[in-house]
Amino acid sequence: MIRKEYLMTPGPTPIPYQVSLAQAEPMIHHRTPAYTEIFVRMVEGLKKVLLTSNHVLTFAASGTGAMEGAVANCFSPGDRVLVAVGGKFGQRFAEIAKVYKLSVELYEYPWDEAADPEVIAALLKDKPDIKGVFVTHSETSTGVVNDVKCIGEVVRDTPAILVVDSISGAGALELRTDEWGVDVLVTGSQKALMTPPGLAAAAVSAKAWELIEAADSPAYYFCFKKARKKYDSQSPETPYTPAIGLVKAMSEAVELLLAEGLEEAWERHRVLALCTRDAVRAMGLELFPKALQGAFAVTAVKAPQGISGGDVVRHMNRVHGVIIAGGQDRLKGKIFRIGHVGYYNFFDMVVALSALEMTLTALGHRLELGSGLAAAESRYMELTGSARP
Amino acid sequence: MIRKEYLMTPGPTPIPYQVSLAQAEPMIHHRTPAYTEIFVRMVEGLKKVLLTSNHVLTFAASGTGAMEGAVANCFSPGDRVLVAVGGKFGQRFAEIAKVYKLSVELYEYPWDEAADPEVIAALLKDKPDIKGVFVTHSETSTGVVNDVKCIGEVVRDTPAILVVDSISGAGALELRTDEWGVDVLVTGSQKALMTPPGLAAAAVSAKAWELIEAADSPAYYFCFKKARKKYDSQSPETPYTPAIGLVKAMSEAVELLLAEGLEEAWERHRVLALCTRDAVRAMGLELFPKALQGAFAVTAVKAPQGISGGDVVRHMNRVHGVIIAGGQDRLKGKIFRIGHVGYYNFFDMVVALSALEMTLTALGHRLELGSGLAAAESRYMELTGSARP
Repeated sequence: MIRKEYLMTPGPTPIPYQVSLAQAEPMIHHRTPAYTEIFVRMVEGLKKVLLTSNHVLTFAASGTGAMEGAVANCFSPGDRVLVAVGGKFGQRFAEIAKVYKLSVELYEYPWDEAADPEVIAALLKDKPDIKGVFVTHSETSTGVVNDVKCIGEVVRDTPAILVVDSISGAGALELRTDEWGVDVLVTGSQKALMTPPGLAAAAVSAKAWELIEAADSPAYYFCFKKARKKYDSQSPETPYTPAIGLVKAMSEAVELLLAEGLEEAWERHRVLALCTRDAVRAMGLELFPKALQGAFAVTAVKAPQGISGGDVVRHMNRVHGVIIAGGQDRLKGKIFRIGHVGYYNFFDMVVALSALEMTLTALGHRLELGSGLAAAESRYMELTGSARP
Repeated sequence: MIRKEYLMTPGPTPIPYQVSLAQAEPMIHHRTPAYTEIFVRMVEGLKKVLLTSNHVLTFAASGTGAMEGAVANCFSPGDRVLVAVGGKFGQRFAEIAKVYKLSVELYEYPWDEAADPEVIAALLKDKPDIKGVFVTHSETSTGVVNDVKCIGEVVRDTPAILVVDSISGAGALELRTDEWGVDVLVTGSQKALMTPPGLAAAAVSAKAWELIEAADSPAYYFCFKKARKKYDSQSPETPYTPAIGLVKAMSEAVELLLAEGLEEAWERHRVLALCTRDAVRAMGLELFPKALQGAFAVTAVKAPQGISGGDVVRHMNRVHGVIIAGGQDRLKGKIFRIGHVGYYNFFDMVVALSALEMTLTALGHRLELGSGLAAAESRYMELTGSARP
């Protein structure tokens, strides 16, 4: 059977052909009016996607680069920060903070649960010298989504800034950067922004700029002040050579996303998540997260009794060409993850679920073929207008 | 929901990205060694696809152009020909033959049945001055596939040549041009050859060349003799400007098809057809053709009681972005057709069948959601190795 690949991981994700074509256009130079126009359109579009009027700084880097930028620009060695860790990407914030010799307070919560805003409030009260709170919006490794709005309310009236990694959230999940009081919002190009990996962005609030003025950790490539200054110049640009093709691509992708409508995109991700959830349950599987509120970016599923999550991932790939993700770190072998953040619609889920039904059957998990798909179709028709003639 | 389009018509059909990229390469001139190499590779590859050692002539035209070429080159006004008509494309051969003022004997057989080789044998015996027999291999309008091998045995020992339209057959269905005694085999680029429309080909036997020498209908653009002469020259070429981008594309597509393997491609189409068939039956629908032997290019389905085939097609397109075909001519409104000839695999069928389950439900046909998909998956696992862990 002809092998077609279906990329269903939570990043990288499929690229709309309009975006691929934009990236394939002839190379242009980045100190030209033509580039400036595209670059500014992208940045101003990103502001609309992130619902912020703050500066949005972009870097030729993966999302981790902007995470490092947040740490390096806002804090000085010895500064006390609180890092909420409930998965691999929470851990990453803690690792970066340690590399920059910050004094890290870990708030570790179970990987199948969300961070508790009240715990964060109590910790902030207990240690009023905490200068920053690091939270993962969508924890890609577990599928759990944190209540950033609520955490924002808790952090807002303290001296601390709120730093949020929304790499797999922005564009897919409700996210109101300014309204929710997110001081540094970090994201990347390769998930809901429907662009190849290689571009990172950070939206930085006035409260964060105050810290940045005072901070003295080393920051050169990811220097926020320099990036802001270059964007505010007569002809907006970046300090160093930008990833020109990716900027063209993301400029196009952001326009597509805004043409769909931000709330419509959020609703699409909600629908896909609910359909996928119903389907895997109908196949007799259990979801990994206990906290399912807003968990619409990734569906993390416990591997069935006696079957390794890795075997599910390998069979899906080898036999059906459907690329899903396994568990990371302590979840290795125990779960598998179906991504639906990005350029996906219902039929992408149908393909993944059909392959999953056949994969599980082949691996010895008993289920009725078609049962997952029936549940997905039924929920889809209920949630959308497609039950009408 | 983001609209993605799923082209599931029996032509045009989806293009592999390698083929799209080949077509998008910088334009080259057609009287250059670089072009000649690509052109020859395409033609020699086509011979392997058609299982012929005859000349394969190519034209910048849709398949109908090569059908006209077959008539114009091989016959003279007044020549008696037998045209087997069991659908819209059989009719087309008859129309062309009449335009060229041939004396047309129509053998009309029911649209849901295949042509009967014995009837053709009897007609040839009855009218021994018949100079050509025109048969549609895969009748795209009905889904029926004729037994060209058997018809070839009947025509072989008569003075008549056998002209076969395999536009939606070649590359998808078993077809052995030389072994089966097909004298003029006509095909087009936009179906199993996985290329955009605009290229037609004709494979011409020695028996046909004898007729061509004697014929005096007008043929200029589609002149077979001129095309053969140009191909046989020092630097093989075409008499007029070729569709250079399409030649690049088809050269790539033919290589992909041969890399898959011809028999493997035939088997793939058989598997897709059998899965689709089982699925639509499980949805409580009836197939249109009574003759199902080898009918693996298109699945033609009767519209359910009280629902127009056109409504099924429109809902599939408007609500789900799945483009299937309706009925043509006398079958308008009565059937709909799912194409699986070309660059398709099982999950393309899964998408079409999922959309069909939801469409039929929305239009009031009662079925159990998931039932068609379950039947397809079950048959797929049985026919392929995918039931193994």
